Amino acid sequence: MSGIKIIKGNFYDCSHNRKLRVRSGFYCVVKDGVSQGVFREIPAEYAGAEVTDYSDKIIIPGLVDLHTHAPQYSYRGSGMDLELLDWLNTYTFPEEARYSSMEYASQAYGIFAEDLVRSATTRAVIFGTIHREATLLLMDKLETTGLVTYVGKVNMDRHAPEDCMEETEDSLKETKQFIEESGKYENTHPILTPRFIPTCSDELMRGLAGIQSVTGLPVQSHLSENRSEVNWVRKLSPESRFYGDAYDSFGLFGGECRTVMAHCVFSHEKEIRLMAERGVFAAHCPNSNTNLASGIAPVRRFLNHGVRVGLGSDIAAGHSLSLFDEMISAVQVSKLYWRYLDGNCRPLRITEAFYMATRGGGEFFGKVGCFSEGYEFDALVIDDSSIRSARETDAVARLHRMIYANHECRICAKYVKGKDIFTSVH
Amino acid sequence: MSGIKIIKGNFYDCSHNRKLRVRSGFYCVVKDGVSQGVFREIPAEYAGAEVTDYSDKIIIPGLVDLHTHAPQYSYRGSGMDLELLDWLNTYTFPEEARYSSMEYASQAYGIFAEDLVRSATTRAVIFGTIHREATLLLMDKLETTGLVTYVGKVNMDRHAPEDCMEETEDSLKETKQFIEESGKYENTHPILTPRFIPTCSDELMRGLAGIQSVTGLPVQSHLSENRSEVNWVRKLSPESRFYGDAYDSFGLFGGECRTVMAHCVFSHEKEIRLMAERGVFAAHCPNSNTNLASGIAPVRRFLNHGVRVGLGSDIAAGHSLSLFDEMISAVQVSKLYWRYLDGNCRPLRITEAFYMATRGGGEFFGKVGCFSEGYEFDALVIDDSSIRSARETDAVARLHRMIYANHECRICAKYVKGKDIFTSVH
Repeated sequence: MSGIKIIKGNFYDCSHNRKLRVRSGFYCVVKDGVSQGVFREIPAEYAGAEVTDYSDKIIIPGLVDLHTHAPQYSYRGSGMDLELLDWLNTYTFPEEARYSSMEYASQAYGIFAEDLVRSATTRAVIFGTIHREATLLLMDKLETTGLVTYVGKVNMDRHAPEDCMEETEDSLKETKQFIEESGKYENTHPILTPRFIPTCSDELMRGLAGIQSVTGLPVQSHLSENRSEVNWVRKLSPESRFYGDAYDSFGLFGGECRTVMAHCVFSHEKEIRLMAERGVFAAHCPNSNTNLASGIAPVRRFLNHGVRVGLGSDIAAGHSLSLFDEMISAVQVSKLYWRYLDGNCRPLRITEAFYMATRGGGEFFGKVGCFSEGYEFDALVIDDSSIRSARETDAVARLHRMIYANHECRICAKYVKGKDIFTSVH
Repeated sequence: MSGIKIIKGNFYDCSHNRKLRVRSGFYCVVKDGVSQGVFREIPAEYAGAEVTDYSDKIIIPGLVDLHTHAPQYSYRGSGMDLELLDWLNTYTFPEEARYSSMEYASQAYGIFAEDLVRSATTRAVIFGTIHREATLLLMDKLETTGLVTYVGKVNMDRHAPEDCMEETEDSLKETKQFIEESGKYENTHPILTPRFIPTCSDELMRGLAGIQSVTGLPVQSHLSENRSEVNWVRKLSPESRFYGDAYDSFGLFGGECRTVMAHCVFSHEKEIRLMAERGVFAAHCPNSNTNLASGIAPVRRFLNHGVRVGLGSDIAAGHSLSLFDEMISAVQVSKLYWRYLDGNCRPLRITEAFYMATRGGGEFFGKVGCFSEGYEFDALVIDDSSIRSARETDAVARLHRMIYANHECRICAKYVKGKDIFTSVH
């Protein structure tokens, strides 16, 4: 039974229509890292394969972080008294400039990678800085963890401090070299990363689009996060109908170009429709959006329009690496949106937030985010026994409680593509 | 040097005007549980007293939870898909009815008390249920912890399921007996607890007011939490000008009667003014208010009007016992309030939320909530060394980071009235 593993336990995941599936005491057969399905009894053909029994623990799909900034992890939890544009200039750009030092990058990214591997995240889409070498160092460190990630060398050639920008031509050249040098990894992939329209000239965007069409690489950026930013983009791209249209005009907004756009707080009807049409992923980052007083993204509308939505921790505007915390926040802010902004947008259910953090974001990585046959086996085995209660809790309430009290629970095992990265030598 | 203790470390607390004070490597002299002040050097008169040196750890005042429901702890983190009135009927009242069983109460309150003592809370104002015996059992358990609490036997005589109500006369009789029997505790005090106007008849409220005027006990209740509730109270108390005025008409709204009112989400100008005038404490419970889709309390207005504000975990509408989580949420929702509801209400600073969780709520207990001379010495000694960073963090950013990443930190010692309740035999 080479390449076959059987995991026994209480499996929680979502169906494609965002409904919770609970299969307690079931068996998931994993072959070469891919689920062969979840069964009540071990199918005859797999009899004799080794079974790992997680008894009463909770098993959920690994969580997918669709948007975060590795270099900002060093100041998480501080400096959240400003709005986006001032926050970037005051805290973020000066910090990111420090990654020209490989010594600093090595220390900071070492901490980031170690904390990420201990977190509930199994896959992530990550911003580096403009520095090719430091970003490759980040990829070196991530590659050793067993996590699957996309990592981008950031592009900026305008409207930022000198030490956070490159000349347009250098930026493109460095990006090409970055892509070449990052070909060596198994689980760590390059992604094109124009920071956002305000810091990327049209020439730079056209150059990146050229690289994209040749390499077929995916793209990550920011969209409609903050009101002042949206107004600024309107001035910078007067020919665009709206912010997303500016990316689209360069061919960097979905379609053939797999794209994740963070935030989308101020995305209106037309932008949402275009996102749906082009299959653009929205990375919803509710803690970040409240911490920077940006606002509340209209996630219910995204779902109604068929936009693909995942969650993002957005360190350091978000204060926590925990995607459980983002689930809680996603549900919370959707309730305030419903209460104050649009009574037709009913609040998210916790299961919908759970879907976003698993299948929603997982889709960016392919067949990832649930235990169905054919999906890569990413899983968290969670011990929630420290949450004590005098009353019986049904299986569904137990999942909710684990999410809301996630900091009291312990992750016992963390599978990525069928390997327990807590115990396996990679 | 009997009765004298000297604590050395990095002290963080707030001045009366909500400014942060940081005194690193200072000494706090504690005499009979009361601070004699914080000093750069040990004053000559205390030379020779024993010094406990917490070296590089963070020392902050113990946190005060102005509003929580002990019986609801058993279902925390689940059942948050409804608004207040339906939530009460579906989840809360059926659960609270179970506390007629002393066996159930013993188990559930045992867990609550143990978790509360491990939390960052040193003082709390707590709802029990209508059951006198179970509520006294809760007080027994809390008394052994060393925490200082107010605990109320709840009064309800209308608009609730049969098994959650008492006859008016019985309710008053039981309350009197509850007060008598709870006279035996040192740190656990009774508080009058009419649940809220909808479940308390005028006759019951008049009876409780009578008890209050004789005993001088403080009062806790709920105020203007949810729109439907506010509209209901308008119908139930047509003679009242507003919700708070209904309590006031019975003499149960501050003044001679020390009062804490939870939520105050829909408190308007007149209600806020009356709260300020009467010295009513507002228990701001931001996680609860978002979880039940109630709304956002106008805390900046409370502060501008001079209302006394503390924070409440409001288990189980709030999902976490951690008042650090309430600080984070308080700042977050104030940003959304500013963004969407009133651009004149500037967001809370994290220091202001820290103030509310320390001095703001502490004032309900007397001279509590900071390290100034004459204040009871409640303190948390916090090890934040597991938050690693490649960069130097200044003292203020360090506090912010500890709050935002509180779940990664460890409370090493917890002083209440000068005693470390983690180590001292009570």
